[in-house]
Amino acid sequence: MIRFVTSNRGKFIEAQRILGGIVQADLGYTEIQADTLEEVVLFGLKELSTRLDSPFIIEDAGLFVEALNGFPGVYSAYVQKTIGNSGILRLMDGIENRAASFRSVVGYSAPGMEPVLFKGELRGVIGFEARGTGGFGYDPIFEVDGRTLAEMDLEEKNMISHRGRSMKALKRWLESQ
Amino acid sequence: MIRFVTSNRGKFIEAQRILGGIVQADLGYTEIQADTLEEVVLFGLKELSTRLDSPFIIEDAGLFVEALNGFPGVYSAYVQKTIGNSGILRLMDGIENRAASFRSVVGYSAPGMEPVLFKGELRGVIGFEARGTGGFGYDPIFEVDGRTLAEMDLEEKNMISHRGRSMKALKRWLESQ
Repeated sequence: MIRFVTSNRGKFIEAQRILGGIVQADLGYTEIQADTLEEVVLFGLKELSTRLDSPFIIEDAGLFVEALNGFPGVYSAYVQKTIGNSGILRLMDGIENRAASFRSVVGYSAPGMEPVLFKGELRGVIGFEARGTGGFGYDPIFEVDGRTLAEMDLEEKNMISHRGRSMKALKRWLESQ
Repeated sequence: MIRFVTSNRGKFIEAQRILGGIVQADLGYTEIQADTLEEVVLFGLKELSTRLDSPFIIEDAGLFVEALNGFPGVYSAYVQKTIGNSGILRLMDGIENRAASFRSVVGYSAPGMEPVLFKGELRGVIGFEARGTGGFGYDPIFEVDGRTLAEMDLEEKNMISHRGRSMKALKRWLESQ
């Protein structure tokens, strides 16, 4: 049984739909300030591997807006908590290049082996207003083919989402082991 | 001789003016994602204390804007690098409450003793445009009594700045030891 170390229930449910038999472990670990999700995940894996003696995964994700030099990136959770979706829309006011991507990195660690990372990306655009009631975080302002992630149900979102993709990559790898 | 562990030459020069005989050590250490500067500094002190066998200091600072729920706060350096001063001005467009504060926390560590923290704060307002060529970072948009920090020379800025205050608190403490 693989443990998914996260305090975010929404994330856990998304992952469980794809991976099946996993359990949530709300343990808490150090998240470092870094330029990339990969660095954050590798540090977390290393720290947790000294505390856990069975297989586990952690995941980090972020929204990277091209015209904002990748902002909010690794700090997406903090930015959502402070300036929120309305802050992002304000920063994008009058900006023509709306390109953005959601990125997810999931890391797997088990005793006696090197950690393995799996990535997923979803390209889209920042909308001009928030729409939809599903999902969480930036979902209402992130559009793919004219619809926001918050306008899709979980099944549909998991089909295309960054986290869906990284988790499916992990799943394929686990099945091949 | 106390080492100031920082890669930021501007910070080091500001501190040296106040503390006198210190040396810069560009070592690098883990900065964690946290809600407060204090947590970031304490983690850094702990990590570095396992690598250094003589007294040293580290410092972390941030701009906390009231109307933006404390944003950019602990992540001020990253936000400066991505959306910059123009991003902050855009987020503050049409917002009446311009109150903000610069905060600095300096931590001192020496072998065989508990780490000690010193804080400094400077209250001001976010201006309506960038002004001045001195200082660095958010200085051109942070006003005190109608002038931005970037319009002051280093002597004057050190008299009132958050970092000047935390460093002076450290200095008084060192002298009392």
